[in-house]
Amino acid sequence: MSVKFAVLGHGVVGSGVVELFYKNKKSIEKHAGNEMDIKYILDLRDFPDSPYKDKFTKNFDDILNDDEVVSVAECLGGVEPAYTYVKACLEKGKSVSTSNKELVAEKGDILLKTAKENNCNFFFEASVGGAIPIIRPLHRCLAANDITKVAGILNGTTNFILTKMYNDNMPFDEALKLAQQLGYAEKDPTADIEGHDACRKICIISSLVFGKHVYPKSVFTKGIKDIQLCDVEASDVLGYSIKLIASVVKLENGKILPSVMPTLVSYDSVMAGVNDVFNAVLVYGDGIDQAMFYGRGAGKLPTASAVLGDVIEAVKHRVTVFSQSWEPAADDSFIEKIENFKSKWYFRLPGGSAIEGVEVYNNDNGLSYITSEELTFAEAEAKAKECSALAYLPVLE
Amino acid sequence: MSVKFAVLGHGVVGSGVVELFYKNKKSIEKHAGNEMDIKYILDLRDFPDSPYKDKFTKNFDDILNDDEVVSVAECLGGVEPAYTYVKACLEKGKSVSTSNKELVAEKGDILLKTAKENNCNFFFEASVGGAIPIIRPLHRCLAANDITKVAGILNGTTNFILTKMYNDNMPFDEALKLAQQLGYAEKDPTADIEGHDACRKICIISSLVFGKHVYPKSVFTKGIKDIQLCDVEASDVLGYSIKLIASVVKLENGKILPSVMPTLVSYDSVMAGVNDVFNAVLVYGDGIDQAMFYGRGAGKLPTASAVLGDVIEAVKHRVTVFSQSWEPAADDSFIEKIENFKSKWYFRLPGGSAIEGVEVYNNDNGLSYITSEELTFAEAEAKAKECSALAYLPVLE
Repeated sequence: MSVKFAVLGHGVVGSGVVELFYKNKKSIEKHAGNEMDIKYILDLRDFPDSPYKDKFTKNFDDILNDDEVVSVAECLGGVEPAYTYVKACLEKGKSVSTSNKELVAEKGDILLKTAKENNCNFFFEASVGGAIPIIRPLHRCLAANDITKVAGILNGTTNFILTKMYNDNMPFDEALKLAQQLGYAEKDPTADIEGHDACRKICIISSLVFGKHVYPKSVFTKGIKDIQLCDVEASDVLGYSIKLIASVVKLENGKILPSVMPTLVSYDSVMAGVNDVFNAVLVYGDGIDQAMFYGRGAGKLPTASAVLGDVIEAVKHRVTVFSQSWEPAADDSFIEKIENFKSKWYFRLPGGSAIEGVEVYNNDNGLSYITSEELTFAEAEAKAKECSALAYLPVLE
Repeated sequence: MSVKFAVLGHGVVGSGVVELFYKNKKSIEKHAGNEMDIKYILDLRDFPDSPYKDKFTKNFDDILNDDEVVSVAECLGGVEPAYTYVKACLEKGKSVSTSNKELVAEKGDILLKTAKENNCNFFFEASVGGAIPIIRPLHRCLAANDITKVAGILNGTTNFILTKMYNDNMPFDEALKLAQQLGYAEKDPTADIEGHDACRKICIISSLVFGKHVYPKSVFTKGIKDIQLCDVEASDVLGYSIKLIASVVKLENGKILPSVMPTLVSYDSVMAGVNDVFNAVLVYGDGIDQAMFYGRGAGKLPTASAVLGDVIEAVKHRVTVFSQSWEPAADDSFIEKIENFKSKWYFRLPGGSAIEGVEVYNNDNGLSYITSEELTFAEAEAKAKECSALAYLPVLE
């Protein structure tokens, strides 16, 4: 008898899950080691032309109370009602696979605990990096490593805008408008360009890697809207690309330091070649040195691919996967203050002359260079104030 | 009580497994959900100064006949005696994790069958791409996809040599000598530079993705020793880098076409930024579009990281993971002939004049360009003969 699952939400991702499942049903069933089928699709809207119209329900209780449904794909987005639904499913022992980064970033610890208590799984591969397998590789394939740092391009919209600024010399406003026209950016693009979306994702990665829940409000987050074409030009000449980097570092004092900032990435790094809407996550560990995962960070089928990968896992292994978990955090004392963030820095200073031993780029927009020494965030800020810097940005190690 | 495993071989990889395990024992045990320890290390040599000298044995039967040993890390290399040992372990229900690409490429189908029959696992994450998680992501995270193509830089030695040729204008022979000095290439570098190593790895990937055992002898394999600096220069001007690409494509006729060839990769592709000894694997699927996995393809701790990741999985899940498997192949009729391989091609022709509608690079070494149309391998070969081509290479799509 086939194993039944339900899809919550028939928006972009949810409809993608249904489409991809029926397209590749045979091979998916082979991977799962079971025949499978979708029994319900939850949506308040009507889809009279859908080939699966008989599966639609507007009543969540139909799914919750049907013992035949062993697994649920949550593709609603937002914290509520997703949280209530997901928690209820887990309490009934139904595993949940979600693409919902707000939900995981805000409620991950509680939902992981609920899953564990009810001997089922809360999976969230699709919540970070869309199609890119990152959650499972991080806690499974790299399980033998002491992971010291993770740095990622985790937002496709801002990466598209920055790519346009670099490749086509397009000002920020124009590139944003183009992203909106192409459907890469929302009408209200705040969550993307201010870095909130990338922040949620680095919270999920930080929680997973370091074992304690990291809330978005604890993470210093700066977006890309102040990036100017003259800094694009200067960094390019110096051999760097500006990317919105979400990172988390494990410090010697035992604390972790997550942050989201526009950051210079050397053209020698494979990360500099991550362009357009693509995402990438670079992981540093004592065994692997470094590994990078690259792919589409959003979109209907890419995100659906990740959700379904989790549904397959849930159908195959119907006991809790303990390692994919973290503890609630009583406070954020394990998170280091941004003032102690350390890196080399890019500065653009008004006018100015040559600086000894450092390559500079000098034109009407000022003098640009990269410090030869590392400075803390606090030191860089003080220096910027002292020199009336026109721009200053960290450089990825 | 702690779960015991054994390490076969105390060479580069085997000693790395021991070192990394004891370094990160606590977190490894957390991931595995069990206390763990190494009970035996098999090696014919003596290691009187090792802190683990009490664990060494020269007698494989000590390991085979000890029921406390539930999992074995095989780091011997080569087909024998590895094959005999691994098969015996699996027949006793001991899961095996291996870094041995020769073994998997030659005997994978038999060993997977043996594992299945004895309800244990034969894992081989470390046999392809060293530290890079690729086997598990391919068959787990991407399980919802119809995978249409995989293309990889799967040999670090040749990638190091090609990087030196590009970045430092170093001739092939000199770059090879440097690779040998740095320990990246063997004294007899044949397996690397002739492409045999990359061939074994694409055989493993092909078998896993398409479900039937692909033997190295069925795969057209060409190495990099004929690559000349003038082709490096010309391809660079045209916007491409030459990489040794091992790939496998699923064709419309249902066959697959694996091959290993020096191939031009556009600078617009993230693959072009994979330099030095790093490896990368690009996967195309109908859900994900494309995803890339990047990292160190060899080395003591990187390879040990992958072996240990598998050991952890084996300890955690002591039942067969069915999906990570493939069938024996009665013949190679499911493999398309290389003559039907299709791509655009790079040609360097003697002398010659402008070609309409195509960018060319012309100097004393000849006229270089990339065809605007795709040609089959057979067509490219015929054209090369007709025009007395000095060089011709495929271009990665």
